[in-house]
Amino acid sequence: MSGLLLKNIRPFGGAATNILIRDGRIASIGSGEPENVKVEDGNGAIAIPGFVEAHAHLDKSLWGMGWHAHQAGPTLEDKISTERRLRRELDIDPRRQSARQVALAASHGTTAIRSHVDVDTDQKLWCFEGVAETRQHFRDVVDMEIVAFPQSGMMIRPGTLELMDAALAAGADVVGGLDPCGIDRDPKGQLDAVFGLAEKHGKPIDIHLHEPDALGAFSLELIIERTRALGMRGKVTVSHAFCLGMTDRLRVNALVEQLAREDIAIATTAPAGWPAPAADELRRAGVRLCAGSDGIRDTWGPYGNLDMLERALFIGLRNNFRNDSDVEYALHVCTQGGADVLKLESYGLHEGAHADLVLIDAETIPEAVAARPKRKLVLKRGQPIARDGQALITVE
Amino acid sequence: MSGLLLKNIRPFGGAATNILIRDGRIASIGSGEPENVKVEDGNGAIAIPGFVEAHAHLDKSLWGMGWHAHQAGPTLEDKISTERRLRRELDIDPRRQSARQVALAASHGTTAIRSHVDVDTDQKLWCFEGVAETRQHFRDVVDMEIVAFPQSGMMIRPGTLELMDAALAAGADVVGGLDPCGIDRDPKGQLDAVFGLAEKHGKPIDIHLHEPDALGAFSLELIIERTRALGMRGKVTVSHAFCLGMTDRLRVNALVEQLAREDIAIATTAPAGWPAPAADELRRAGVRLCAGSDGIRDTWGPYGNLDMLERALFIGLRNNFRNDSDVEYALHVCTQGGADVLKLESYGLHEGAHADLVLIDAETIPEAVAARPKRKLVLKRGQPIARDGQALITVE
Repeated sequence: MSGLLLKNIRPFGGAATNILIRDGRIASIGSGEPENVKVEDGNGAIAIPGFVEAHAHLDKSLWGMGWHAHQAGPTLEDKISTERRLRRELDIDPRRQSARQVALAASHGTTAIRSHVDVDTDQKLWCFEGVAETRQHFRDVVDMEIVAFPQSGMMIRPGTLELMDAALAAGADVVGGLDPCGIDRDPKGQLDAVFGLAEKHGKPIDIHLHEPDALGAFSLELIIERTRALGMRGKVTVSHAFCLGMTDRLRVNALVEQLAREDIAIATTAPAGWPAPAADELRRAGVRLCAGSDGIRDTWGPYGNLDMLERALFIGLRNNFRNDSDVEYALHVCTQGGADVLKLESYGLHEGAHADLVLIDAETIPEAVAARPKRKLVLKRGQPIARDGQALITVE
Repeated sequence: MSGLLLKNIRPFGGAATNILIRDGRIASIGSGEPENVKVEDGNGAIAIPGFVEAHAHLDKSLWGMGWHAHQAGPTLEDKISTERRLRRELDIDPRRQSARQVALAASHGTTAIRSHVDVDTDQKLWCFEGVAETRQHFRDVVDMEIVAFPQSGMMIRPGTLELMDAALAAGADVVGGLDPCGIDRDPKGQLDAVFGLAEKHGKPIDIHLHEPDALGAFSLELIIERTRALGMRGKVTVSHAFCLGMTDRLRVNALVEQLAREDIAIATTAPAGWPAPAADELRRAGVRLCAGSDGIRDTWGPYGNLDMLERALFIGLRNNFRNDSDVEYALHVCTQGGADVLKLESYGLHEGAHADLVLIDAETIPEAVAARPKRKLVLKRGQPIARDGQALITVE
């Protein structure tokens, strides 16, 4: 027997058909039922491409380590310093914890992940190396991009820039950054350094920008200017971008127009508690939008589960999406939207695409988003990695 | 055998103990293990009192009726008129649908519900009568309050006031109202009528107030004035109150102070996509706060599942609650907070209280909120109404 036939499945909730998978790719889609292949009956389940988790922190989750009582202070700096202290105290081992996150993500249907990984003068490359080990170990389960992320600041912690440089030389895929005003107090210095690393290593950029209102708009302008000046069109992502949720719509519209012009992507968690980019505005302007879970039950907070179908719900709720086509767009952000940002090759449900896909028992995509049933089957390159909500891989 | 012993359970996530239930009430809490009682081993599960769903619309859900493609226009009026048309077209039978909602709520651990029920010149008392029939049929499963709710407006639809009066005479528990400016275009007229009905029938009030910013603040002032003038302190609830999420903090603070003075309660869904009252501000001011699911997969939108543990998550996310004590407060809003608004007698986990309780497998309350496991066991007056996430009652 060669190949796997997914029988009676409905791509994107459409008409029932069969998908034949050979050599890890979709060989054909249609009513045919070739002989001598393994058959999996979908019983009318919806098929979608694997979820793309475009903003995670796999190195810092406390998943599986017992409950941690959250008591960090209210500021970003409180949470950063609390985390730095607790990493070693609690033994938050990046390799073990990232492996657990891969299993958790797989159980929910995620087949590609962009993970930020802390690089600082305390941890040095410990987090990067642990997550890189997980990436290698589970390379058949998930496509993983690693962002070298200066969580504790770069300019305010001398030595961090050199560690970032080392992480990128050692295989980190993306240059990270963080609140150039709010954390580093030196927006020109930090952004010149970040873009400098990107030029040196020929790698894309993904910058956390929590700064709100006019402050975030200022930092975003600096990012746009450098993207244009250095010819990095299409290679920069801004995560969170809370400033795009500010009340000054004229200012936001002007920023969105420039984001579209430089093809700068936005990654969102669709937060309920912060101003956030309006998905619809970005869609209309042609700005690529992807989504992610951010932290998963870490020292920053108790929430999160790496379930991108739940994230689609959060996008829907945050944006007041009610009509079917809007809710379908929320799911699109969590699948194709992520693939467009990570630039995944051969992604989707078409002949020749990688057979990374998810079966979900639901009548329609919006019902799947609203009800979030356990994933019936998750395939990575045609191989089952989860079934009935349970990952089929073993981790500590 | 007389009585039920819940063995090895942890009230509110505290130390393990046993709860003895006799005659539908908590007879004792302690390490004792009396003989000749039925025993249920909780295996260390958390015990909390039954959830209180304080804002639902049991008459309008499409649950179990197949997927309905949502295409209503963007305004509140669009959704109201679309719903009025579809009620009969789709046969959204209030009796059948409210019974399904009771089973769904029970499966998630809800033991008390306040449901708004549409009263208008098209449906007349059809919705009220259907839900009242469900209330009677399932009186051993859930304590249900019915709000006579003029969904389509009262002043703009002559005849509605008389129907409201009839519903209240026929057993509706609470007088409802809706956006006195936005929908009825006559705030004085509507609110005088609503408070008049409350006086006449000696019943409390629960008014939907979606109106944002200064408009909502104006309507809220009119509600406060009438509450004070008519001596209705403690008998008025305002649902949604989006205006309390407006950016003018001075204005909000003044309103909150008056709400506290008149003991006017707030019901929230903790919406991600609208400005909303800040739970923490209300808590500090001593304003009673309860929560609800609002519509459940109805013609208004695809979301909702009557899971108040998920609602606690939404409260946490909406309010940026991260520390354990804050997340515990989010759960409190969905339990005791609702009981304080519905004025449920003998509610809680103390000797003499009604044995309405939920067992949840989790280490702590915040973990329960973050992970939302299936409810292990739900008791109403000491009788199991759901187990392992499945309601034990039968509906069409």
